[in-house]
Amino acid sequence: MATRRTPAAASPPPAAHDQPLYRQLYLRLRESILSGALKPGQRLASSRALASQTGLARNTVLHAFQQLEVEGYIEAARGSGHFVSPLLPRADAARGAAPAGGPVSPGEGPAPLRHTFDFVPPSLRRPIPAVPFRVNLPELERFPMATWVRLQSAVLREARRGGGVGELLGEADTQGEPALRRAIAEHVSIARAVQCSPDNVIVTAGAQHAIDLLLRVLTQPGDAVVLEDPCFPGALSAVLAAGCEVVPAPVDEQGADLDAALRDRPATGSAPPRVLLVCPSKQFPLGTTTSLPRRLALIDWAQRSAAWIIEDDYDSEYRFDGKPIPSLQGLDGGRHVIYVGTFSKVMFPALRTGFIVCPPTLVGPLTAARAVSGRHGSALEQRVLARFVAEGHLARHIRRMRALYRERQKVLLQACERRLGGKLRVEAAASGLQTVAWLRAGSDDREIARRAREAGVETAPLSRFGLGTPRPPALVLGFGGFDAPRIRQAVERLASIDWS
Amino acid sequence: MATRRTPAAASPPPAAHDQPLYRQLYLRLRESILSGALKPGQRLASSRALASQTGLARNTVLHAFQQLEVEGYIEAARGSGHFVSPLLPRADAARGAAPAGGPVSPGEGPAPLRHTFDFVPPSLRRPIPAVPFRVNLPELERFPMATWVRLQSAVLREARRGGGVGELLGEADTQGEPALRRAIAEHVSIARAVQCSPDNVIVTAGAQHAIDLLLRVLTQPGDAVVLEDPCFPGALSAVLAAGCEVVPAPVDEQGADLDAALRDRPATGSAPPRVLLVCPSKQFPLGTTTSLPRRLALIDWAQRSAAWIIEDDYDSEYRFDGKPIPSLQGLDGGRHVIYVGTFSKVMFPALRTGFIVCPPTLVGPLTAARAVSGRHGSALEQRVLARFVAEGHLARHIRRMRALYRERQKVLLQACERRLGGKLRVEAAASGLQTVAWLRAGSDDREIARRAREAGVETAPLSRFGLGTPRPPALVLGFGGFDAPRIRQAVERLASIDWS
Repeated sequence: MATRRTPAAASPPPAAHDQPLYRQLYLRLRESILSGALKPGQRLASSRALASQTGLARNTVLHAFQQLEVEGYIEAARGSGHFVSPLLPRADAARGAAPAGGPVSPGEGPAPLRHTFDFVPPSLRRPIPAVPFRVNLPELERFPMATWVRLQSAVLREARRGGGVGELLGEADTQGEPALRRAIAEHVSIARAVQCSPDNVIVTAGAQHAIDLLLRVLTQPGDAVVLEDPCFPGALSAVLAAGCEVVPAPVDEQGADLDAALRDRPATGSAPPRVLLVCPSKQFPLGTTTSLPRRLALIDWAQRSAAWIIEDDYDSEYRFDGKPIPSLQGLDGGRHVIYVGTFSKVMFPALRTGFIVCPPTLVGPLTAARAVSGRHGSALEQRVLARFVAEGHLARHIRRMRALYRERQKVLLQACERRLGGKLRVEAAASGLQTVAWLRAGSDDREIARRAREAGVETAPLSRFGLGTPRPPALVLGFGGFDAPRIRQAVERLASIDWS
Repeated sequence: MATRRTPAAASPPPAAHDQPLYRQLYLRLRESILSGALKPGQRLASSRALASQTGLARNTVLHAFQQLEVEGYIEAARGSGHFVSPLLPRADAARGAAPAGGPVSPGEGPAPLRHTFDFVPPSLRRPIPAVPFRVNLPELERFPMATWVRLQSAVLREARRGGGVGELLGEADTQGEPALRRAIAEHVSIARAVQCSPDNVIVTAGAQHAIDLLLRVLTQPGDAVVLEDPCFPGALSAVLAAGCEVVPAPVDEQGADLDAALRDRPATGSAPPRVLLVCPSKQFPLGTTTSLPRRLALIDWAQRSAAWIIEDDYDSEYRFDGKPIPSLQGLDGGRHVIYVGTFSKVMFPALRTGFIVCPPTLVGPLTAARAVSGRHGSALEQRVLARFVAEGHLARHIRRMRALYRERQKVLLQACERRLGGKLRVEAAASGLQTVAWLRAGSDDREIARRAREAGVETAPLSRFGLGTPRPPALVLGFGGFDAPRIRQAVERLASIDWS
């Protein structure tokens, strides 16, 4: 068989020579057909002739023919061999096909993209190394994984004894398993004074997913959304992905200053914000707890201007002294405030489970949006989580971790005081996994963070999270995920860098 | 203490009386403050007096005071008792707060929603009962869950022996764990002739998530997207959620007829489609395999018009005779065709894992979009899945299930032939979990499906999936998830309904 060696044929697909012999022949014949070396209607050499020409067994040749026939490249005519399918377009019309397909070059794609999501920062694209003082990292080695695995086995075993595991492994309730929604409603009612019933809970694949779904339902491109300044990059990215205008509300010691945010907007041509996104329990990254007067003012504003408040109740359960501050949602009665919670910090990030508590009008639209963005979650995992919460394992874990994190913050404060006094003024956070360390006036926090990284220490420069409000330089230091020796060692390393 | 009983106070929060005594007092005092019965600056009765008035222990009263103080409702003045915080707005200004917050009434929310996602059909919002002949349901009782759990334990154990489980339970690579991307790349190269390297793979939370992400990157509202007619409701919902114009391409026995789709569009005022979404291996719901000439024509069109093709390779691995048809992506060399795969059908839907294979230019934007829509997946689960694939468990399971589904389709065909001949003409699908059963001309497939449901049998009327192209009436019958006795029993039930 005369095969014209086209450039494509000259570069076989990766690892073609590792493939079975029939497949190598199949690929060669396919290339010949697609390149036009073998034309529509043309007769192929007989399997016998081809076998003797190539030195392959006749069965191998027939195997290749069979595959080409199944795929429509060739047709068998009884008793008279095989022909290239006459239905195929001529090679010059089929120029789109890339039979041998070498590696694809960047930029070779067709239409330009409509959205490149360039605004998503590197920290959200790749995980930051889990070394001190990475933020938002809980202690993962102490999570009672044995309990989790035991509950998983129990849930599976009970299902097998009952109707089978199909209900656990199949499609789940898009809104979330009823058992988990009950457990969540009970937990946040007690722990966070959130007002809700299981019907108002929507289980999501984490808090980021929850915020993205909310923005897809509540906003359209061009709407104004108030964000705390500084703020979590995931929230900012979600607002930018929704095509919304960002209205920064500078955070002071009382929380987000909404008056300042609205005062600074151009008086004409801008519609009032439809959505306000806040972390009243513990601001990220400043750690501020929004004061009660501010809370009441936010709710009042939302009511007056028919806006929604999304309360991202991130990192709130680990309050070191006294009871946690109740949620803004509970104060509002769940009318204007939508509550977003997550299990990433109180359990572990890989659980990918968060939730929304919202007014009844939003349940249908959010459930539908959740269906579009990924159908549903895992019924198995959600039922295991429901058991974990309902049997008190979560509350017990939170209690233990709260004591641990309180202690770890103390270690950090003492070590910094001893080794970095005068360079860093570390605040004592009232809760959570991280705190702010203020640098000397005039320092460049990004440069200091860069030097720290070179010394093997992760810190987040405060300026990375800013939306325009000027702030003194600072580093955000996560202490939750690291034991005392690692904290002290990292402080030693920080003491060795150039602080000028 | 004189507490004016406001209407809100008359309806205490659910289960308030089950709460600790201090909390009941805290709630009553909070209501009084927020309702204005206790005014900013007003002095509270002393803890001693309050204890004697209420019959509570003085410590209980102090506990309530402490919580109110932490939350900013009251302030302690050393030696002179407690006062309502003077910083609080007066009750008339704080009308937004709903202290005792009875249940929220529907419609009480503030701004109207921008998107209600009404177009998402009920079948995507709640799972359809797992009874015959529900579509898209694999056999879940035969999944080797014991192997899965064993691999999970092994992955956890090995991590504990090494650096700890933090890497498994923490934040994962947004693009997907490298081990899983390697396993996927190898699997689809061999099984589906997809051209890819692990760098071109993006792991998603299922095929629906993948399609939603792709539309968010590739389109903007108003863009035209070609969909097969009929088509899967999840794909249609994603296109509508993206605000795109739907251009239906009628499916004939060769696959989607793109010429017909473009011919029927108004000649003026409409931009050419930017995206084409197809299931060339097995069309949903008709089961058609796109012919080779059509495949070449699709690729040629994409190249000529600078458009993208999304290949949803749904349900393709269970080809009953011969090898599966290779992917469209492989034919194109991965230049215009983006491949979407899922583990929901070959493993189980609760795994919530799918993937995209795309040209290099798309990797960054899609990874960023994935970060916005939910950060990342579970490193633990992804590594377990990687092991499951790499150790050959997936290929073995697919082989077993292929034989099982082939047999089940045979049982369905025979039972329908015997009991429903003349009423239903059931097609023999070449692959997958379901097939089409044509009804007598003039039947109303929705009405027949309604009667079947009343008899306890789930069928999907073909007309439910249509985008306008007239079709004879038919039911889509899923056979994958049901053993022979259940299939025969369901056919008996169908035989009992009114077919007029």
